[in-house]
Amino acid sequence: MATPNNIDPSEFRRALGSFTTGVTIITTRSAEGEPVGVTANSFNSVSLTPPLVLWSLAKNSRSLRAFESNSHWGVHILSAHQEGLSNRFAKSGEDKFLGVDVEDGAGDIPLLSDCCARLQCKTIFRYEGGDHIIFVGEVLEFDRSELPPLAFHAGQYALAASKGKPVSFTSMQHDEPELTFGEDFIGYLLARAHFQFYAQVMQHAAAYGLTDSEYFLLTILAMRDTQTIEEVSALFSYTGYHITRAMATDLQQRGLLAAHERDSNVEYGLTDAGREVTLRVLSAAKALEIDIESKLGANESFALKHLLKTLIAKTDPGFAHPWNRA
Amino acid sequence: MATPNNIDPSEFRRALGSFTTGVTIITTRSAEGEPVGVTANSFNSVSLTPPLVLWSLAKNSRSLRAFESNSHWGVHILSAHQEGLSNRFAKSGEDKFLGVDVEDGAGDIPLLSDCCARLQCKTIFRYEGGDHIIFVGEVLEFDRSELPPLAFHAGQYALAASKGKPVSFTSMQHDEPELTFGEDFIGYLLARAHFQFYAQVMQHAAAYGLTDSEYFLLTILAMRDTQTIEEVSALFSYTGYHITRAMATDLQQRGLLAAHERDSNVEYGLTDAGREVTLRVLSAAKALEIDIESKLGANESFALKHLLKTLIAKTDPGFAHPWNRA
Repeated sequence: MATPNNIDPSEFRRALGSFTTGVTIITTRSAEGEPVGVTANSFNSVSLTPPLVLWSLAKNSRSLRAFESNSHWGVHILSAHQEGLSNRFAKSGEDKFLGVDVEDGAGDIPLLSDCCARLQCKTIFRYEGGDHIIFVGEVLEFDRSELPPLAFHAGQYALAASKGKPVSFTSMQHDEPELTFGEDFIGYLLARAHFQFYAQVMQHAAAYGLTDSEYFLLTILAMRDTQTIEEVSALFSYTGYHITRAMATDLQQRGLLAAHERDSNVEYGLTDAGREVTLRVLSAAKALEIDIESKLGANESFALKHLLKTLIAKTDPGFAHPWNRA
Repeated sequence: MATPNNIDPSEFRRALGSFTTGVTIITTRSAEGEPVGVTANSFNSVSLTPPLVLWSLAKNSRSLRAFESNSHWGVHILSAHQEGLSNRFAKSGEDKFLGVDVEDGAGDIPLLSDCCARLQCKTIFRYEGGDHIIFVGEVLEFDRSELPPLAFHAGQYALAASKGKPVSFTSMQHDEPELTFGEDFIGYLLARAHFQFYAQVMQHAAAYGLTDSEYFLLTILAMRDTQTIEEVSALFSYTGYHITRAMATDLQQRGLLAAHERDSNVEYGLTDAGREVTLRVLSAAKALEIDIESKLGANESFALKHLLKTLIAKTDPGFAHPWNRA
């Protein structure tokens, strides 16, 4: 643990940064009538009755005087699309509002558009907070939208993805869905992400002379001891690939599979040579996954896997799950 | 806008909920020596010099007396795996610490394990905040981990996924990657998510007598006017599928394609019948996407697409992008 006398500011910032926040822009109007705004993630709610919120402003901020002289200010909870606006208001500068559409709010404060929510407030307390002043405001008016939020974590902008709850299956009323396809189409993104990964795995499989279906068959047998062809085929039904007995016979002739008879069914298992080849390809696939996690980041891999699992669960027509061990 | 006299508490809560937060458990020890803890998302940082943080506790909380009598408390910024712990400490109950391992912190406060960060604090200010008390504490000691954080948004637990920045391509030092496959393997999740979606699209394509490759060829021609077979084939190289001239000739005979000669190249385009069939299948695919977005939620679809795009960009070996219009 870091001790009182040796709190390293950058380590302390990193520890605080592990607390995820939204991003807000807080605006007011100076005594001279100029619009003033700062980006802040120190916002939080305080009280429901009366409706109070708070945020902190550095004592050395150029905007402090405006927030001390004007009791009214507006909190804008930013949407995922407002990263640019957040960056603009995070810097010191004279022309933050240049080209930005503003509406007039309570007390003549400038209000921005396209946010997740806006709260128009009036200072009721200003509290001492070390190198910051804590502003507590009563919420006079507010509005909100359903836009996805901009979040902030570990010093970077982030997206907040719900971990999931029972979903309301709203009936679909799209008789004429708008035909806009492109880089944003989920079917394309899933296919492309899959094929890019898969092409690399198959390079390794092909190096051992294995086709797609042969590779599928071998990986299943590496995870489970022995299986009939029908069992393996059912486990891969989700791919649309078919595993046939001719394929198994061929792999048997190449020394990779062995057949056993059990309860008058023919079951197949890996030979030592078959296990060796399969583990080499799986090992390459695992290395690819580790590489992806390093490129994508640990939190992002975690979130991506979580979202893919949710998608799979919510759209599963009932295919068998090959990884659930029998 | 909601006006001062008609602030609807549930609408107000929804507006506040659009601000993403982390989740903390704040612990202390009562005058009687009992461990006390509450789940709070009202935490935020205040000051770096001195190191100050704050959080708010409801005035009617059963834990208020303990936090008023003990100047020391510990903030635990929870990791994505600690949703259960968060739920447990969010409820009123006598046995929140039952079976939970605790360490002793500054001032004998109970510290929990496996968090993103822990901050041991001493109250320096207690401020009035409507129906809550705002506790401002000086951080005496802290530690942190690299665990993925638990976030909270719109009344639900969430994951925070970085929007992405330049990534440090750390060299991979895994000579012997651990061979654990299963439902958590990214290759499986990508394949399964892709095939589940794709199988539904192909049901529609098959209803019009189209194979995979034929469907690919037709969709490309629906997006771009005319193309040579070589051009279309390059655009779908990422799938591993090959588009052949024989396929085009066959579709021509079925009245779906027309061939034109240009600059001594043969280019293909859709006939009216071909366009009709293609748009019907694309329309079904679009309806599937809308259905997925409704099942997954708007923020989650947005985050999933963002993460897939990041993955695709970071692992793209240089395949052509079919949706970039020429």
